[in-house]
Amino acid sequence: MEGEPISVLCTPALVLDVDKVKINAQKMIDRYQKLGVQLRPHMKTHKTLECADIMTGGSRRCIVVSTLAEACFYADHGFDDILYAYSVPFDKVERCAALSERLDLFQVLLDHPDALELLRKRPLRDGGQWHVWMKLDCGNGRAGVLHSEPGALRLAQDIAETEGVELTGVYVHCGNTYSCRGVEQIHAVAQETIDLTLQFMEKLKAVGISCKSSIGSTPSCSHPVKDMAQLSEVHPGNYVFYDVQQSTIGSCSLEDVAVRVLTRVISHCPHRNQLLIDCGWTGISLDGAGKLPTGYAVIEGHPNLKLVSMTQEHGRVEPSSGQLDYSRYPLGSLLTLIPYHSCAAAAMHPVYHVHSGGRLVGKWTPTRGW
Amino acid sequence: MEGEPISVLCTPALVLDVDKVKINAQKMIDRYQKLGVQLRPHMKTHKTLECADIMTGGSRRCIVVSTLAEACFYADHGFDDILYAYSVPFDKVERCAALSERLDLFQVLLDHPDALELLRKRPLRDGGQWHVWMKLDCGNGRAGVLHSEPGALRLAQDIAETEGVELTGVYVHCGNTYSCRGVEQIHAVAQETIDLTLQFMEKLKAVGISCKSSIGSTPSCSHPVKDMAQLSEVHPGNYVFYDVQQSTIGSCSLEDVAVRVLTRVISHCPHRNQLLIDCGWTGISLDGAGKLPTGYAVIEGHPNLKLVSMTQEHGRVEPSSGQLDYSRYPLGSLLTLIPYHSCAAAAMHPVYHVHSGGRLVGKWTPTRGW
Repeated sequence: MEGEPISVLCTPALVLDVDKVKINAQKMIDRYQKLGVQLRPHMKTHKTLECADIMTGGSRRCIVVSTLAEACFYADHGFDDILYAYSVPFDKVERCAALSERLDLFQVLLDHPDALELLRKRPLRDGGQWHVWMKLDCGNGRAGVLHSEPGALRLAQDIAETEGVELTGVYVHCGNTYSCRGVEQIHAVAQETIDLTLQFMEKLKAVGISCKSSIGSTPSCSHPVKDMAQLSEVHPGNYVFYDVQQSTIGSCSLEDVAVRVLTRVISHCPHRNQLLIDCGWTGISLDGAGKLPTGYAVIEGHPNLKLVSMTQEHGRVEPSSGQLDYSRYPLGSLLTLIPYHSCAAAAMHPVYHVHSGGRLVGKWTPTRGW
Repeated sequence: MEGEPISVLCTPALVLDVDKVKINAQKMIDRYQKLGVQLRPHMKTHKTLECADIMTGGSRRCIVVSTLAEACFYADHGFDDILYAYSVPFDKVERCAALSERLDLFQVLLDHPDALELLRKRPLRDGGQWHVWMKLDCGNGRAGVLHSEPGALRLAQDIAETEGVELTGVYVHCGNTYSCRGVEQIHAVAQETIDLTLQFMEKLKAVGISCKSSIGSTPSCSHPVKDMAQLSEVHPGNYVFYDVQQSTIGSCSLEDVAVRVLTRVISHCPHRNQLLIDCGWTGISLDGAGKLPTGYAVIEGHPNLKLVSMTQEHGRVEPSSGQLDYSRYPLGSLLTLIPYHSCAAAAMHPVYHVHSGGRLVGKWTPTRGW
């Protein structure tokens, strides 16, 4: 189907504007080259080789992944310097060891002494070192040792002092930027996260430990504050696609969003003032419920339409106000959904259809599972 | 890993109790054999060959699917008499025609004159007939012509009278049983749906048309009312796994649920009175938000725990009341989630791990896409 317009696709279909993908990726590369900070792009949003190539500027080095399935997939295809940024999983230490022994540089992450103990008990072959990032929680409220806990410094010291293990860096996710609205708020949260991270780095220095520091999240990395230059790395991921959520936060404009879900009108329901589309939650996910005035997505070019509910393969669309003019939406009409959360929408699709200027140029196949 | 306990699995992992799957399937087979009604099981929940085999009692005949990807998958593996129960998709008529020409019996569904027109314009090879079910909405409020619309009878007549097309039956989804609580309410909704369906069949008979009738939904088919015996077919699907939602509706007991998501404790967050598990929305979906006192799932054997929120790969768990006793949940502890909606949880997994009595017996691989 290469060269054909995207309208030939069976729906629902996830389509990617490869030009926007490249622009989003290049802007991030340029931004951090200028700041002198290593960009380590996160693969979790797309999980494809092609997009990883673009995000790494073709180097296939220096990436972050969210699952071991991703780590193996990228390792199998010539990628290296992979950070598996997920609290070392108790069931997966052997697989992590195998990757550590096989790649030039495989890095893991932990936030608990018990995880360190697991690594200590599984020394790597030929005196190899476990490369360990310690996850620090600087206000995000998910994984990580809380920055203010005395145990945080203690754990970092233990990592640094454990035989066969090296403290590579301190890893902070700045996910609390997701509640921001606008660049000013993003800057405030990012500044606070960086301040706390740098304070922690100072504490480490005071006990004679020097290692890298890294913060991430698409909002903070799309609008860097000056002090970001003091970090070693950043690790955003979603920016390569962006989405409605990111435009609401202020990370991007809606025009920057590279991903869409194509869907068709499959039924008219005048007795309910609704129409049905062939995109249910298998096509776009249930992420974003209650967040947008237009429902689960933005329907491009139809600001008065709302995706009010979905079942497995059906979406119900109705006007925000007034009566639907069904003559505008004959059966088979194509509608274009901009997803609220591109990571969640992409996760539902076994293949992404890639286009340039509306003409198909190829397909990208993500990896799945764990 | 066959013969090993399910605890050897890397998490998150979807596990199926094959004995419960077989019992759920056999009960439904027996129920409708006794009633003299053809059971046409829906594949949408699992989308695997193995489970389809079990649900059809090994016949590999007489199934319903929700996507053309499923239809092709089953056709490619020796299944036949397949009903693609989805408003004929405008972009997929050619693929439907190919299946109609290839299988002994491929059936489609529609609810709009424009869809009929598409079929008329694409006559099947060698004088073959399109086998068409008309979808009727008897109060469910999703797809289908509203039973009370004069257009409903007109469309059925048009289907019956169109050359190259045969009206196979009237198809009704009884999805409004999902708001029921208890068998009495399920019976009431099912009875109303059946009454309206049979009234419509009478109208058809009055104009000289005779065809099949079918209603579905796991709640109505798990507790059939007597008049169900007057229908030609039933088409439930979820019952083979069941889930927390079905137990809340009253379709089953929690003990009947055949599916679980295994997850492990990966972090302790005493400052928030929470622990983190390695099941985010990629592991169980966001379905069921706000529906259960225990959050997005039931955590088996831990009625005081609540899965309060999820991001892509993390779940936050906290006690409904009191302080978490972390000594009960050391890092690496296995927790077992009973999904709110098994269709949605299964849709997130590229493979299902099948066990009997807690010992692994194999893997089932679902088809995905459209």
